[in-house]
Amino acid sequence: MSTYTPPLRDMQFVLHELLQVTDVFKTMPKHADLDADTINAVLEEGGKFCAGVTFPINASGDREGCTLDLATHNVTTPKGYKEAYAQYVEGGWPALSAQPQYGGQGLPIVINQCMYEMLNSANQAWTMYPGLAHGAHAAIEAHGTEAQKEMYLPKITRGEWLGTMCLTESHSGTDLGLLRSKAEPQADGSYLITGSKIFISGGDSDLAANIIHLVLARLPDAPAGSKGISLFLVPKFLVNADGTLGARNPIFVTGIEHKMGINGSATCQMSIDGAQGWMIGQPNKGLAAMFVMMNAARIGVGMQSLGLTEVAYQNALAYAKDRIQSRSLTGPKDVSKPADSIMVHPDVRKMLLTAKAYAEGGRAMSLYCALLIDKEHNHPDEQVRQDSAELVALLTPIVKAFLTDNGHIATNACMQVFGGHGFIKEWGMEQYVRDNRINMIYEGTNTVQSLDLLGRKVLGNNGESLKKFGKQIAAFVSAAKEDEQTAEDMEEFIAPLTDLATKMTAFTTELGFKAFSNANEVGAASVDYLRVAGHLVFGYFFARMAHISLKAIAEGRGDKFYQGKLQTARFYFAKLMPETLTLMATAKSGAAALMDTDAALV
Amino acid sequence: MSTYTPPLRDMQFVLHELLQVTDVFKTMPKHADLDADTINAVLEEGGKFCAGVTFPINASGDREGCTLDLATHNVTTPKGYKEAYAQYVEGGWPALSAQPQYGGQGLPIVINQCMYEMLNSANQAWTMYPGLAHGAHAAIEAHGTEAQKEMYLPKITRGEWLGTMCLTESHSGTDLGLLRSKAEPQADGSYLITGSKIFISGGDSDLAANIIHLVLARLPDAPAGSKGISLFLVPKFLVNADGTLGARNPIFVTGIEHKMGINGSATCQMSIDGAQGWMIGQPNKGLAAMFVMMNAARIGVGMQSLGLTEVAYQNALAYAKDRIQSRSLTGPKDVSKPADSIMVHPDVRKMLLTAKAYAEGGRAMSLYCALLIDKEHNHPDEQVRQDSAELVALLTPIVKAFLTDNGHIATNACMQVFGGHGFIKEWGMEQYVRDNRINMIYEGTNTVQSLDLLGRKVLGNNGESLKKFGKQIAAFVSAAKEDEQTAEDMEEFIAPLTDLATKMTAFTTELGFKAFSNANEVGAASVDYLRVAGHLVFGYFFARMAHISLKAIAEGRGDKFYQGKLQTARFYFAKLMPETLTLMATAKSGAAALMDTDAALV
Repeated sequence: MSTYTPPLRDMQFVLHELLQVTDVFKTMPKHADLDADTINAVLEEGGKFCAGVTFPINASGDREGCTLDLATHNVTTPKGYKEAYAQYVEGGWPALSAQPQYGGQGLPIVINQCMYEMLNSANQAWTMYPGLAHGAHAAIEAHGTEAQKEMYLPKITRGEWLGTMCLTESHSGTDLGLLRSKAEPQADGSYLITGSKIFISGGDSDLAANIIHLVLARLPDAPAGSKGISLFLVPKFLVNADGTLGARNPIFVTGIEHKMGINGSATCQMSIDGAQGWMIGQPNKGLAAMFVMMNAARIGVGMQSLGLTEVAYQNALAYAKDRIQSRSLTGPKDVSKPADSIMVHPDVRKMLLTAKAYAEGGRAMSLYCALLIDKEHNHPDEQVRQDSAELVALLTPIVKAFLTDNGHIATNACMQVFGGHGFIKEWGMEQYVRDNRINMIYEGTNTVQSLDLLGRKVLGNNGESLKKFGKQIAAFVSAAKEDEQTAEDMEEFIAPLTDLATKMTAFTTELGFKAFSNANEVGAASVDYLRVAGHLVFGYFFARMAHISLKAIAEGRGDKFYQGKLQTARFYFAKLMPETLTLMATAKSGAAALMDTDAALV
Repeated sequence: MSTYTPPLRDMQFVLHELLQVTDVFKTMPKHADLDADTINAVLEEGGKFCAGVTFPINASGDREGCTLDLATHNVTTPKGYKEAYAQYVEGGWPALSAQPQYGGQGLPIVINQCMYEMLNSANQAWTMYPGLAHGAHAAIEAHGTEAQKEMYLPKITRGEWLGTMCLTESHSGTDLGLLRSKAEPQADGSYLITGSKIFISGGDSDLAANIIHLVLARLPDAPAGSKGISLFLVPKFLVNADGTLGARNPIFVTGIEHKMGINGSATCQMSIDGAQGWMIGQPNKGLAAMFVMMNAARIGVGMQSLGLTEVAYQNALAYAKDRIQSRSLTGPKDVSKPADSIMVHPDVRKMLLTAKAYAEGGRAMSLYCALLIDKEHNHPDEQVRQDSAELVALLTPIVKAFLTDNGHIATNACMQVFGGHGFIKEWGMEQYVRDNRINMIYEGTNTVQSLDLLGRKVLGNNGESLKKFGKQIAAFVSAAKEDEQTAEDMEEFIAPLTDLATKMTAFTTELGFKAFSNANEVGAASVDYLRVAGHLVFGYFFARMAHISLKAIAEGRGDKFYQGKLQTARFYFAKLMPETLTLMATAKSGAAALMDTDAALV
């Protein structure tokens, strides 16, 4: 009973007014000719695909799940998945941002991310299949030999073949250094891989003719731990020299998990019984090669929760407007009816606006991050490429953890708007909560993300990257103060943003000092720290979006969209950013209350 | 793969050391002879039933769910439910706190609540069946005629018959004033009831010989809205004068819902097609009569989440100790193994301690509240009865909303401790999250609870009830400061408790003034306000529990239990109570940021 309308207006606002992407594209030869009309047309078509093809099979796919034929090891996806995938390939969507030399359309990553937001709003489980292939594509492109690229990339680019990431083993999840799968070198330069993997998304499916598994394993003489892991390309079907499919490689699904959500996505236990594979990148450098996929995957997970936040919001808003129940606290608002719409209740609005603000803040932040990746890859100026890479590294754990935690908050709030109906499967809301729940866990739990942010990306370089982002905020604040047209109206946004930025600097310094004497202080503060950082980034973007809106209003272009954006920004600063008060207090309260607890945790 | 051990030691601590229940019982003739050994023996036996009988069918019941035979309208519960219920009846558990005159054992409600915590840890879905019967029992006892009581209560008391609450209709949930079911008076003094109900828990089942439905409906001449609703007793099978079962009454299940959780509990759509019923209480006073059930039910829902918080915690702790993954941030802790237990990580401890503190704080608060109900019902002093009733009224919405929100936080945190395994059904953790999710919704959403608290229970009587509770805190603080044995060590708990109590007074006054000019200020602040109130109550109990523990340690009785309690209290004040900083800030930011948002919510 759920519905979905692609949020094209807000995407256009972020792309064209906030990020001014076509101006940025003009600085990069690869994208210099891309204009706004083309971008908008692509997104409109993409939105049609999502709303019309994959969204209608979202609830049915959840109910049906995947099935495994243990005799053949073949996975069957839910009804309609295969046909939807064929249409996806037919439409050229897998190739959207892939390199033209391998058959791609070469569009910017920021456009592809818009498409991924919509795909995930429509059907996160289905989107896992092309999403993983996209990750495998990135790793082969970055670390494969020319021969490997020519053999595999065109097929993956066009979507004829899919791909997976085979990392986790039952005893080795967060700590990949513990993994035991083995790779035995063969005379012909290939390897025979053996081992067992779990939690392999799309480990098998009936969507594509072949699946290119990227498998982490150890060479016979590899050092122990994470420095002894190599990456191997292991096709489901071996590929002949002419590109046709050869023998079935013994990499088999032996079980599929029954999960809380994303039931249309096959989460597979894999047995690798001497399968033939080829090394990607250098011996014992597999983790580094894999991290090319992981960083893209982490931003991708953030986009999953952004998509769920948006679709949950749309449905909760429609329900709240339609649901007639009780009267306003200030007296009846619609006397023609036996009760008022529940939109009259402040807390219903709070739940709705929480989801809306988290969707719009998340869209701004993640597309900003995606545009940085485009600059990192394609900008002619080396310094710009380096600066962009540095900011992407800083923001990646925030996009992953902040957006997925926000998705948890938002989908639960939207479900709550439905009252008892929210708990009933038929209405579709509880699926968004269940599907989102994995996003806080996989591709590195949100705790792992927070340690990456505070330990490595912030304290690891003395806060240099954070300072660069801080300078960007300061530059905007100065400019906003000097903009006479809006300076006065901007004060309500600039004041709390400046306040948080100042506190963030002192907060970071304080944690840095404490971490110097006790590394556990990092672990005790990092989860809180990441959310404070997320709010600083959101505050920056909401202030910028408020500025654009105020200017539009001042110049007489201020239609309901801009007024709504302004109200959403006000809501954000009034009701969501103050979470930082608690976060800073609990982070500062330190590690002792956690670590001196052996008597409690018995 | 989940396990459950009844938390008898902590229950005994709360009952005997914190609440000193036997001293309280001595003031009430009905319970004066009840001693600690008897109480402990009852809880030990109860724990055995829960861990041994209903816990083993919790996961299987979730997978299997209930089935409806549309031809007969009969609901079949999951495998093992019926046998477990027979054992429950056999053991006399339905009668634990019921009046002896109707076959009950007459034990205090506080003991029954301990049993309910354990039942809900073991299997919330199963516990819904006897839980609803308990509510129906309470309403008939409070408002039925003597003849009705004699006809129905003994059977319900012994568990031979079950009961339901038939309130909700599809267009009438929170706003019961909208309901349309009709009751036509008959010559014999009975009524013919017609209408459709939804969300009826246990609307049918195969557990008991008969089901006594309590149905809200309108008399022909009833005023519109909530003042025209009457309560009717509508048995599934009519009962002959000799107590045997007669004809099937036309109150039928026409559908069962497919839900996010509590799948073993049949959530029924009911069609009432001229069923014979008898009025309970006075015409048009049905809502008041029903609220006898609702208040008990609301505390019961709090106990559901307390139970889930406890069992989720136990399993997450066991997993964390067992799971070997990565090294401590401060260097390897167990060099004999390839990695350390994840207990070395501060954030894992934070997640575990969050659940532990919410379980122990919730246990203290809810049992305190249950003991107040015993005093309300049975204390010989009228003033004590009145004061107790007033405090129960104040605390009921807090128990319901704070404990269920905490259960959401805690079960999600415990699931997160499991990493990817938390998302897999086999491990049992995601079921706790799903089952808990309804507790925030039914028996009045948590928003409704917050309006009840701030609007009615606090501002509605100028904060008088809250002041009474505040005096109790002040008396404890004075006593703690004068207790030389522990005064110095108590300072770390007394200071933040006193600080929050002071702020709470000013906070309440401020909201009261704002509400005076705009009722929406109540709705904008109430959800935040309720959580601040919850933290004040938890802070009071954690300070008291810390005091008891410090005394035990000072007197040489301080075993690991007391040291652990002290550490849990420290964790609570350091990491959980600071949530109040944000809550007060967002509450004070007012209604405008919510209500002036018509342009945003389009």
